[in-house]
Amino acid sequence: MSMPRLVVLTLSLALACSVHAATKPSARRAPAKPLSMQELLDTSRPSDWRRLDPQNTLLLELADGHRVVIELAPSFAPAHVANIRTLAHEGYWNGLSINRSQDNFVVQWGDAEENAARRRPLGTAKAKLPAEFAFRRGNAGTFDWARLPDADGWAPQVGFLGGFPAGHDPKSGTYWMAHCYGAVGAGRNNEADSSDGSELYVVTGQSPRQLDRNMSMVGRVVQGMEWLSTIPRGTGPLGFFEKPEQRVVIRSLRLAADVPAAERPAIEVLRTGTPRFAQLVEARRNRRDEFYKVQAHHIDLCNVPLPVRDIKP
Amino acid sequence: MSMPRLVVLTLSLALACSVHAATKPSARRAPAKPLSMQELLDTSRPSDWRRLDPQNTLLLELADGHRVVIELAPSFAPAHVANIRTLAHEGYWNGLSINRSQDNFVVQWGDAEENAARRRPLGTAKAKLPAEFAFRRGNAGTFDWARLPDADGWAPQVGFLGGFPAGHDPKSGTYWMAHCYGAVGAGRNNEADSSDGSELYVVTGQSPRQLDRNMSMVGRVVQGMEWLSTIPRGTGPLGFFEKPEQRVVIRSLRLAADVPAAERPAIEVLRTGTPRFAQLVEARRNRRDEFYKVQAHHIDLCNVPLPVRDIKP
Repeated sequence: MSMPRLVVLTLSLALACSVHAATKPSARRAPAKPLSMQELLDTSRPSDWRRLDPQNTLLLELADGHRVVIELAPSFAPAHVANIRTLAHEGYWNGLSINRSQDNFVVQWGDAEENAARRRPLGTAKAKLPAEFAFRRGNAGTFDWARLPDADGWAPQVGFLGGFPAGHDPKSGTYWMAHCYGAVGAGRNNEADSSDGSELYVVTGQSPRQLDRNMSMVGRVVQGMEWLSTIPRGTGPLGFFEKPEQRVVIRSLRLAADVPAAERPAIEVLRTGTPRFAQLVEARRNRRDEFYKVQAHHIDLCNVPLPVRDIKP
Repeated sequence: MSMPRLVVLTLSLALACSVHAATKPSARRAPAKPLSMQELLDTSRPSDWRRLDPQNTLLLELADGHRVVIELAPSFAPAHVANIRTLAHEGYWNGLSINRSQDNFVVQWGDAEENAARRRPLGTAKAKLPAEFAFRRGNAGTFDWARLPDADGWAPQVGFLGGFPAGHDPKSGTYWMAHCYGAVGAGRNNEADSSDGSELYVVTGQSPRQLDRNMSMVGRVVQGMEWLSTIPRGTGPLGFFEKPEQRVVIRSLRLAADVPAAERPAIEVLRTGTPRFAQLVEARRNRRDEFYKVQAHHIDLCNVPLPVRDIKP
């Protein structure tokens, strides 16, 4: 008697997937069946993808040599992003550490020194920044707001703005970055304007969207989330490490523009706000493959994959 | 000049928190300000908590000695839970391994053997089970359906049923477990009835609720999620480990009823479907502490914490 082999291959979600498929021209035939996400990526055009701007890309290198790539979001938090660029340029984080890893919530890095007098100076970066929790759209033409078709419990509208998951309130005209998996925010004290961008956290669990509009959000991890999400959890309050040797040392945190071109990540990300992206969202709202017996007719903002692929040399 | 110390203590979410506060009788005064989650737990009564049933509790012990506690959900998938009890009782998983860890999705364990002839026999467990994706409520009196007040994009209603996050369709009268962080499901092939409970997965990322009503869900991790969520990610397709030595060996997976009482977890979980739980949900829908500048007036099903605490000896 043969035993069934439960391969469960079709549990695939491929969030934050790295896509290595060749870029082929779009097929002209009208398919009888909607294309799957993989088919949409396989038939995408070069113009469906964009490269990261080295001025908006952070390279976080951990002590073990693993690298995390972060795209900064100056549209959402211009003052914070400018400060972070300065801090990275001046090597502020090099040799500091990830000091907190709280299960199903965040990792967080910065200066672990408790004594204010011994904390690392911020260099030419600003010590005081405004709160940048949400912003008003200045010029409709410069934005590619890709609104999701479904309702969201946390915001009047949700969608993607220049590649970042975001909430939107049409009444106030404001946008804000959503706390999805991989979102990067600036830690602060109780005062809204108490963040300076030197202490950063990354969401590593179920999206804590109650923090939306409460934090200055500065970017998103586009590659290497697995090196942050698997950091052992801290056993102190809020997941802070209790012993200094448990901290994860940051070898360097640099702006891509400050490293030689050959060391920059050779990746590109799928553009949001395009017909191809809208098709991808629809392919994920309703899975048409044989595995799914019930289709959701829905997708939550933080479940939408944002594909990344290697640039072919 | 003193430097600001960004402690960011108030980023606390304390999902799946372990609560060690003393149990005090409820205060009689009507508080001017709603109580925080911690205050609600601190003033809870012993009857607000319940112990796990050893017949419905799985103890997963990994090679490094770390323990994961799973509460089984026979209301949701009675045939699967019965089979899992048999498999655990007969030691089916002992010495097998976690074979998959896909970032922001799931870990999964079972028999990694590809050759059907060499796979471990199921013993007296059944090789064939019905699909148990959703169920109809038989007797209203036996259920404590704690409906959440907010809208949900994936289900007509959401709430908690006997401690498990669930969706509900009043039209069909059906309930199903939601794929929240820590949810445990039975892997299957494309056929709906192709799971036998021997291959189990646990959600370790953003809730993949498109799988709701597509899988037989068997329980929920109540303690030890951090030992599963930090397993290094597999680099093969779907996060399967490429080399056998990368698999995480399961020392044992036992039913709590099969181990001596002293070895069972000395924990209890907050009851859902009680006034105290409803207050806790409201305390998380709108955070009243100084840190929050904007309140959400909302909570998603998978953001509701399900507190666990040690039983005082």
